[in-house]
Amino acid sequence: MKTELFLDTLRIKGPRLWQSLMDLAQIGATPKGGVCRLALSDLDRQARDLVSGWARAEGMTVTIDQIGNIFMRRPGRDNTRPPVVTGSHIDTQPTGGKFDGNYGVLAGLEVIRTLNEHGIQTEAPLEVVVWTNEEGSRFVPVMMGSGVFCGAFSLDHAYAATDISGKSVQGELARIGYVGTEVPGQHPIGAYFETHIEQGPVLENAGCVIGVVPAVLGLTWYDCVVTGFESHAGPTPMAIRKDALQVATRIMQEVVAIANRYPPYGRGTVGMVQVMPNSRNVIPGQVKFSIDLRNVSEDLLARMNQDLHDYVTCTGSESGLGIALEQVSHFAPCPFHSDCVGAVRDAVATLGYSTMDVVSGAGHDAIYAARVAPSGMIFVPCKEGISHNEIEDADPAHLEAGANVLLQAMLSATRATRAA
Amino acid sequence: MKTELFLDTLRIKGPRLWQSLMDLAQIGATPKGGVCRLALSDLDRQARDLVSGWARAEGMTVTIDQIGNIFMRRPGRDNTRPPVVTGSHIDTQPTGGKFDGNYGVLAGLEVIRTLNEHGIQTEAPLEVVVWTNEEGSRFVPVMMGSGVFCGAFSLDHAYAATDISGKSVQGELARIGYVGTEVPGQHPIGAYFETHIEQGPVLENAGCVIGVVPAVLGLTWYDCVVTGFESHAGPTPMAIRKDALQVATRIMQEVVAIANRYPPYGRGTVGMVQVMPNSRNVIPGQVKFSIDLRNVSEDLLARMNQDLHDYVTCTGSESGLGIALEQVSHFAPCPFHSDCVGAVRDAVATLGYSTMDVVSGAGHDAIYAARVAPSGMIFVPCKEGISHNEIEDADPAHLEAGANVLLQAMLSATRATRAA
Repeated sequence: MKTELFLDTLRIKGPRLWQSLMDLAQIGATPKGGVCRLALSDLDRQARDLVSGWARAEGMTVTIDQIGNIFMRRPGRDNTRPPVVTGSHIDTQPTGGKFDGNYGVLAGLEVIRTLNEHGIQTEAPLEVVVWTNEEGSRFVPVMMGSGVFCGAFSLDHAYAATDISGKSVQGELARIGYVGTEVPGQHPIGAYFETHIEQGPVLENAGCVIGVVPAVLGLTWYDCVVTGFESHAGPTPMAIRKDALQVATRIMQEVVAIANRYPPYGRGTVGMVQVMPNSRNVIPGQVKFSIDLRNVSEDLLARMNQDLHDYVTCTGSESGLGIALEQVSHFAPCPFHSDCVGAVRDAVATLGYSTMDVVSGAGHDAIYAARVAPSGMIFVPCKEGISHNEIEDADPAHLEAGANVLLQAMLSATRATRAA
Repeated sequence: MKTELFLDTLRIKGPRLWQSLMDLAQIGATPKGGVCRLALSDLDRQARDLVSGWARAEGMTVTIDQIGNIFMRRPGRDNTRPPVVTGSHIDTQPTGGKFDGNYGVLAGLEVIRTLNEHGIQTEAPLEVVVWTNEEGSRFVPVMMGSGVFCGAFSLDHAYAATDISGKSVQGELARIGYVGTEVPGQHPIGAYFETHIEQGPVLENAGCVIGVVPAVLGLTWYDCVVTGFESHAGPTPMAIRKDALQVATRIMQEVVAIANRYPPYGRGTVGMVQVMPNSRNVIPGQVKFSIDLRNVSEDLLARMNQDLHDYVTCTGSESGLGIALEQVSHFAPCPFHSDCVGAVRDAVATLGYSTMDVVSGAGHDAIYAARVAPSGMIFVPCKEGISHNEIEDADPAHLEAGANVLLQAMLSATRATRAA
C-alpha cells in the first residue's frame, strides 16, 4: 500500500477530465454550445452507454437498478465494506449546459482513472453512480432516481410518470434498455460525495475555487391570490378603490424583507406574477403570484413561513381585500454530514485551494443520498453563476481542482468506512 | 311665447326616453343584455338610420359632415344664432352596454320631443348631434368624429385609420352611406351639453341623482421598464440580487402615493404588468408595467409627473438597476365652461334633485366640443359604477332626471345664446 504522504500528493489529470466532458457533451450538442439530452431519450441511452463503457474500460463492474440508476464499481481491499460513492446525473435541461450533472459523474470517473494509473487500491470499494432523471424536464418528480433509491416516493409512482406525449418512465426505461434487476435502495452506500458547478455567483464573486457545502437550503413554495375589485382607472377615486395590485406589491416587498430578516441564508423571491385583467386603464381586480422562501434550517424556514402568514393576515385585515395563500411545495433543508463536510474541508486545506462555505440553493441528488448515507458536496464556480442555459460555462482549472478535492475526500472516506 | 315660470315646470317623459333607449339597444343586442355595435358597421348604420328617422319625424333637419357626424336640427325663432347642441355617440364597445353614449343622444331627442309636444319655440335653434366613433374599439383614434370636428387631428388622418381586417374609415363610412358634404368644424355651436352615465361609483356611493361635471381629468400614460439580472432563486444570495420586480413594486406603490398627495382628483394606476421570465424559481430579470396618472388641472398633473420622474431617478440611483420611463400618451385636463356648468347647476337647483360635483375620469366627445364652444356635462349614476360591460345598467328615474336637467340647461342656454 502506498503511504498516506504519497496519497496527499496524488492529482487527477485536468485535460483528461475536460476531454471526457467535451466527448460526453457531443451527445445532444446544441448549435449554441449547450446540450439537450432529456432523461430516457435515445440520447440519454447513448450517454449512458458511453459512460458505462468508459467505466468497464477501467475494469469497473456495472450494476443497474429497477429505476435505471447505474452503479459503476471499483473493488476495494475489503469488499465487505460499503462503497464510497460519488456521482450525479447525465440527463440535461432542454436548453442545458455541458457541466450540470455531467461534471459530477465524470469527476468520479477521473478519480477512478487516477487511482488505476497509479495502481492504488483503496480499503473500501469505490463507486460512481449515474442517477436517473435528475432534471425532471421530461418526467416529474425531479431527482427521480435518487428519490426512489432513498424511498422519498415509490418505484411505481416513478414508473407511472408520463411525458407530454404520454410516454411513461417505465416504458421509456425499458425501451432504452436500462431497467436493471436490483431493487432501488438495496445497495449499501458508506459515504456519498457529489461535485457540481455552483449554479450561482457566490464563488465567482468571491474569487474562490472551491465551495464547501454545509447544507442545501430548504424551501416552501406558495401561490398567493389577492382579490380586489376591477374598475376604471379614470372615474374611480383613490379612496374607494380595491386595487389588488397595490396590496399584492406590499406582500411582494415583504417576501424580500422576510428573507433579509433571516441572514445569511434566508432567500425570498417572487418570480411569477399575473395581473387581471391586465389593461392599462383598469384597476387590477385580481393578482396571482408565486412566493419562494428558503433557508438553511427547518427552524429558520418555519419562522420565515410564520412571518409571511402573519403579514398576509394583517394585510388582509387592513386592506379589506381577500388574500388566499396556498402552500404548493415544501422541501426540508438538508444539512450534510459533518464527517463528509469535514473530509471535503480537510481535502481543500491539503490542496491549498481558495475556499469558502457555500450553501446550495438548488436541489441535487445528494439531498436524497443524504437520507441513506453520510453525504457531502463540492462546488466549483460557473461563469457568471449561469446554469440551466446553453451558455453555461466553467473554468477547466476549477473543474480540475474540484476533482482533486473529490479524490482526496474519497480517499479519506475509504479509510474511515467501516465494514457494513 | 310661454312664460319662464311655465318653462321651469316643463318635464320630459321618462317612459318615452326609456322606450327609445330599449328600442335602440335592440340593434346589436347581445345575449347577456348588452350591445355590440361597432363604429361604421352595418349595425351602426341601422342605428344611425333609426335615430335620424326619429329626428325627421319630429320635424328636424339632418345634416351629415365628411366624418359622418350627424347634426339633427330644430329651428329657433332666430336662426342666425348658433344652435345650442347636445348629443353623444351611438357606437359601442364590443361588449358594451345600452346607455354609454346612447343616453346622451336620446336624452337630447327627448328634449326635442318634449318641446314639440308643448309647442315651445326657442330663441336659438337646438341640435342633437351623433358623433362618429367615440369608442375607438374598431378604429383609433377614439373620439374620432368630435376630434376631427374640433381640429384635434385631420380628416385624412381619421379616414386612413383601418380596423384589424384592413378596412378603412373612409371606405366603411362610404359603404354605410354616411359621408356627408359639410366640412367638419364648419358648423357653428353656441353651447354644448352632454348627458352621460357616470361610468364610476361616486354618485351611487353618495346617493346623488345628478353629477355636475366641472371638468374632465387630464392624464399622462407611461410605459416603465425595470431591468435587473435574471438568476436562480435558490443559489443567489439576497445581497447580490438585481431583482427587477422588487424595484418595480416600489415604483408601483409610489404611483398610488403620488395620486394620494394631490387630492381630491389625483389618480394613479398601474394596470398592466409583465414579468420576465415569469418563472417561479427565477429572480425577475425585467419587469414592464404601465402607469396612468390623472388630475384636474395641468399644474397638478405636471406636479404628479414631476414627482414620478424624481422618484424613478432616485430609485434608479439607489438600486443600480436600469429604469426606462417612456411617456406614451397625454391628454390635457378639460375644465368645462363656467356658463355651461352654471346652467347645469341652476337647472338642478330648480328641479330639486340631490346633486354633487363629479369630475369625469373618462374621455367624452364633450372634451373636444369644449375646444370650439362653451361646453358642459351632466352625469347620472350607473349601477355599481360599471360601464364598458354588457351588465351596464342605470335607473330609469335617474335617466329621466338627467334629461330634465338637460332640458332646463338647454332652455337657459338658448336664452343666453347671442347671434353669431
